[in-house]
Amino acid sequence: MVGIDPGLRITGYGVIRACEGKIQLLEAGIVRAVASRPLEQRIQEIYDGVAEVVRDHQPDFVALEQLFSHYERPKTAILMGHARGAICLAAAQVNAPVHAIEPTRVKKIMTGNGHAPKHQMQQAVRLQLGLKEAPEPADVADALAIAICVYHQRCNPLASS
Amino acid sequence: MVGIDPGLRITGYGVIRACEGKIQLLEAGIVRAVASRPLEQRIQEIYDGVAEVVRDHQPDFVALEQLFSHYERPKTAILMGHARGAICLAAAQVNAPVHAIEPTRVKKIMTGNGHAPKHQMQQAVRLQLGLKEAPEPADVADALAIAICVYHQRCNPLASS
Repeated sequence: MVGIDPGLRITGYGVIRACEGKIQLLEAGIVRAVASRPLEQRIQEIYDGVAEVVRDHQPDFVALEQLFSHYERPKTAILMGHARGAICLAAAQVNAPVHAIEPTRVKKIMTGNGHAPKHQMQQAVRLQLGLKEAPEPADVADALAIAICVYHQRCNPLASS
Repeated sequence: MVGIDPGLRITGYGVIRACEGKIQLLEAGIVRAVASRPLEQRIQEIYDGVAEVVRDHQPDFVALEQLFSHYERPKTAILMGHARGAICLAAAQVNAPVHAIEPTRVKKIMTGNGHAPKHQMQQAVRLQLGLKEAPEPADVADALAIAICVYHQRCNPLASS
């Protein structure tokens, strides 16, 4: 499964799989969009990067942050909707349903604190995946955390409640 | 050039060209997305329809309503951002820049009234393009009006001021 933390400059992604009850990291990274370019070109950059990841991994589903968590900044939220639309398209093109989860819920599941700071999330992801180093940048850790939490919700609902 | 009036159920599109100073209608229609389907599938339906139109016509640019005119309904605006993201992607894939225009400006240019009702816009588009019938549904007329106004702004700026 693929988790994605969309952004108009940096989009983090993380690919995980469950093997004998353990979650393993397959691939993770970022897709960059050049901030000085017109919106449509930035969306194309995000789409191209994400489409390559989902084509390579053919995930069962794609996990994203819940839609409506940025009401306090409507302009940003609408722009993010554009990036999210291109990511949803990439998922639909490989027949992967999109599952959304609230960011505070991801933080709560990963750390026990719905408002955990970035470094705490990075450490939680490191521990969950048995990594030597915490994922960098924080966008990658967030994407992996989203994938881990949606996996638990779907496949192991008691563990995430 | 192509004008698009994005919607999560009905997306209107209109293709026009200027010939000896007159604007001609080349093609117009709607792309339907099935409301009961998951968001990612609806976005794919919108993308597939719009991508076909821009691939067929290879427009100089794609004209859309300005982004931030729906602040009073942030949830709708964010969802519309998704559809708009897929449309921007289709434009970028044929190297067509996206030009945005405020809906009140479109109505003002077409009818003299920034809050013109739908039927008035449909009649204004009919007259501008020398059509026998007013374009139906209103989404098609809106898409054509957006294309006409952005054409005037770019190619004939005095006429639209």
